[in-house]
Amino acid sequence: MPVPDIDAALRRALSLAAQAIGLTDPNPRVGCVLLAADGRELGAGHTQPAGQAHAEVMALRDAAARGHDVRGAIAIVTLEPCSHHGRTPPCCDALIAAGIAGVVVAVQDPNPQVAGQGIARLRAAGIAVELADASTADVARELNIGFFSRMQRARPFVRLKSAISLDGRTALPDGRSQWITGEAARTDGHAWRRRAGAVLTGIGTVLADDPRLDVRLVPTARQPLRIVLDPQQRMPADARILQPPGETRVIGPGRADLPALLAELGSQGINELHVEAGPTLSGAFLDAGLVDELLVYQAPLLIGEGRPLATLSPLAGLDHARRWRVVEALPVGADLRLRLRPT
Amino acid sequence: MPVPDIDAALRRALSLAAQAIGLTDPNPRVGCVLLAADGRELGAGHTQPAGQAHAEVMALRDAAARGHDVRGAIAIVTLEPCSHHGRTPPCCDALIAAGIAGVVVAVQDPNPQVAGQGIARLRAAGIAVELADASTADVARELNIGFFSRMQRARPFVRLKSAISLDGRTALPDGRSQWITGEAARTDGHAWRRRAGAVLTGIGTVLADDPRLDVRLVPTARQPLRIVLDPQQRMPADARILQPPGETRVIGPGRADLPALLAELGSQGINELHVEAGPTLSGAFLDAGLVDELLVYQAPLLIGEGRPLATLSPLAGLDHARRWRVVEALPVGADLRLRLRPT
Ligand SMILES: NC(=O)c1ccc[n+]([C@@H]2O[C@H](COP(=O)([O-])OP(=O)(O)OC[C@H]3O[C@@H](n4cnc5c(N)ncnc54)[C@H](OP(=O)(O)O)[C@@H]3O)[C@@H](O)[C@H]2O)c1
Ligand SMILES: NC(=O)c1ccc[n+]([C@@H]2O[C@H](COP(=O)([O-])OP(=O)(O)OC[C@H]3O[C@@H](n4cnc5c(N)ncnc54)[C@H](OP(=O)(O)O)[C@@H]3O)[C@@H](O)[C@H]2O)c1
Repeated sequence: MPVPDIDAALRRALSLAAQAIGLTDPNPRVGCVLLAADGRELGAGHTQPAGQAHAEVMALRDAAARGHDVRGAIAIVTLEPCSHHGRTPPCCDALIAAGIAGVVVAVQDPNPQVAGQGIARLRAAGIAVELADASTADVARELNIGFFSRMQRARPFVRLKSAISLDGRTALPDGRSQWITGEAARTDGHAWRRRAGAVLTGIGTVLADDPRLDVRLVPTARQPLRIVLDPQQRMPADARILQPPGETRVIGPGRADLPALLAELGSQGINELHVEAGPTLSGAFLDAGLVDELLVYQAPLLIGEGRPLATLSPLAGLDHARRWRVVEALPVGADLRLRLRPT
Repeated sequence: MPVPDIDAALRRALSLAAQAIGLTDPNPRVGCVLLAADGRELGAGHTQPAGQAHAEVMALRDAAARGHDVRGAIAIVTLEPCSHHGRTPPCCDALIAAGIAGVVVAVQDPNPQVAGQGIARLRAAGIAVELADASTADVARELNIGFFSRMQRARPFVRLKSAISLDGRTALPDGRSQWITGEAARTDGHAWRRRAGAVLTGIGTVLADDPRLDVRLVPTARQPLRIVLDPQQRMPADARILQPPGETRVIGPGRADLPALLAELGSQGINELHVEAGPTLSGAFLDAGLVDELLVYQAPLLIGEGRPLATLSPLAGLDHARRWRVVEALPVGADLRLRLRPT
């Protein structure tokens, strides 16, 4: 008799979870696959928009719709099933009630207060629970990096995007920046915006470029919240960022305290914050050590004199510079996409 | 009976040729493998220092030393065998005299005046000659990119090296630059210096850093010529660049005309010129369109205010910027090594 291919099912569950990007915030993106003892897939699904069904329930419903009996089946889930009553009943209870025999969990719940409780509850009901290997757990964590950040640090994961030349310029001295990077990079940038609960910029960028900062170049089920920091209420009434689609929040008068702002956005369910600002605000985030990831599109050209990526406070010496780790360097069209994390 | 594996022999010949880097200038780096009809290797070798044996002769000698009869054998060579009397007799004649039955050539002679003559001479002697596929020819050409440049354009291939931060800085505002990149990048930089017939810098770099600009961090059979452009004779008598190992040429008084300088270096047998200068001279080479490859080590840190990669003349607009093509993006230690060529 064939046996279930757990690794393949984990990959499928992760790809289902990825389909939930831009759909489930503030809830995590979760995928679930139900396998019969002989390895056949009985049902599969991913989390729905907040307040609606979680991945496990979607997979059980899918199996029911396909006329399959799930008693004795194995559930493969990308995140530990919840054990508490939120807007929906706990997924653990649904799996137990359905007569599932075993559960494979890609990664534990990020909330230190509840991590392991879902697994314990399943085991108490006689269900065999296994954890995936460390590298699968990493992939599962990355998929919900903002949710993990919010649960563990009570603030969003902050990704700072910038499009620069090889010599680190974001614009000519007079501010012209269209276009340094190519179309593929701009489209890719929209895919990262879509992941975010909110896209944040400064009034300087609004006044210079009048950008929309919405998600247009890739399909999306919802628009991220747009946030503009505008301490001196300089926002023009006809700014395009104030137009639909999507909501816009203008923060001002007064200069927002950035750590406090992040805490507030975390409490409001923003998992990933996408910062797409000029050198002034980018510098403020970087100087404050609040950037969790640099997303840099680097175009293969030299500009010479021009605007910087960020206006930073002077370094006392090179050994005082914060060092980053290149986690990815990938060609995107003619440009390079670099992602860096603090060391 | 087993048959000769020509692809494997081409790879082996190319790796032999690579062993000749830093050894054969101004001659090209060439490798040769002799295979029996049943695929056994009879002999192999690579070009020796200029005036000594070429690859084909080395391979024939190797076969003789191993007691093998090479009549009827196949010769695999990374560059079309020479047909003219230089400092050594033509390799074609050596292959013909040895009774070789077939020759596989990775790439034709770069000199348009002589390309194909070696092949024609072999064929006239009844030897079957085949050319390798286009991708093998590319690898063979890259290995001798400077020799090709000198034969086809009568000037060296110019590689401009720079070590920069993610935001394109080469130093703090006061000039401190030790160290932006890590040890692995510095060692890798020496391997690229070793390839070059000459390493060129400006007097500004000499006065600021007193560098040696020799090859120390990797083993080498010879030191590249060091060249300093010093229009106003500001070279200190005790500058380290004037010390052994290796020769140093100081060009001045008067500002050298760069295209004329390249023509002169070409006529003197410099295949690859490694430019490792400050922003002033780097900018002069770039503005003049004389750079064939950018070799950029990019360290994952942000410097903010600082010195640029190159001082360039202002751009009228972004569409006036010269566009480059990223031919390689590779991690080297914690840094990235980018190689770019003009589009
Ligand atoms: N290459 C890219 O990826 C990219 C992305 C976005 C923008 N840009 C470019 O950036 C340029 C605009 O740069 P910019 O620096 O003027 O705009 P910015 O950084 O977007 O906005 C700066 C403004 O934000 C306000 N602000 C609010 N809170 C702040 C805080 N905590 N710290 C610092 N500032 C705070 C200040 O407004 P007040 O002065 O009113 O107090 C400040 O002047 C444009 O030319 C645009 O093209 C490039
Ligand atoms: N990051 C890196 O990879 C790297 C590599 C090398 C150097 N550097 C840094 O660069 C800094 C020095 O910069 P720099 O710009 O002063 O030095 P440079 O570019 O090496 O030298 C500039 C000088 O070269 C002379 N020169 C001769 N011919 C020239 C021409 N055709 N065009 C322009 N200049 C010509 C001029 O001397 P006169 O003024 O006497 O006429 C000029 O001032 C140092 O701090 C060093 O650390 C960095």
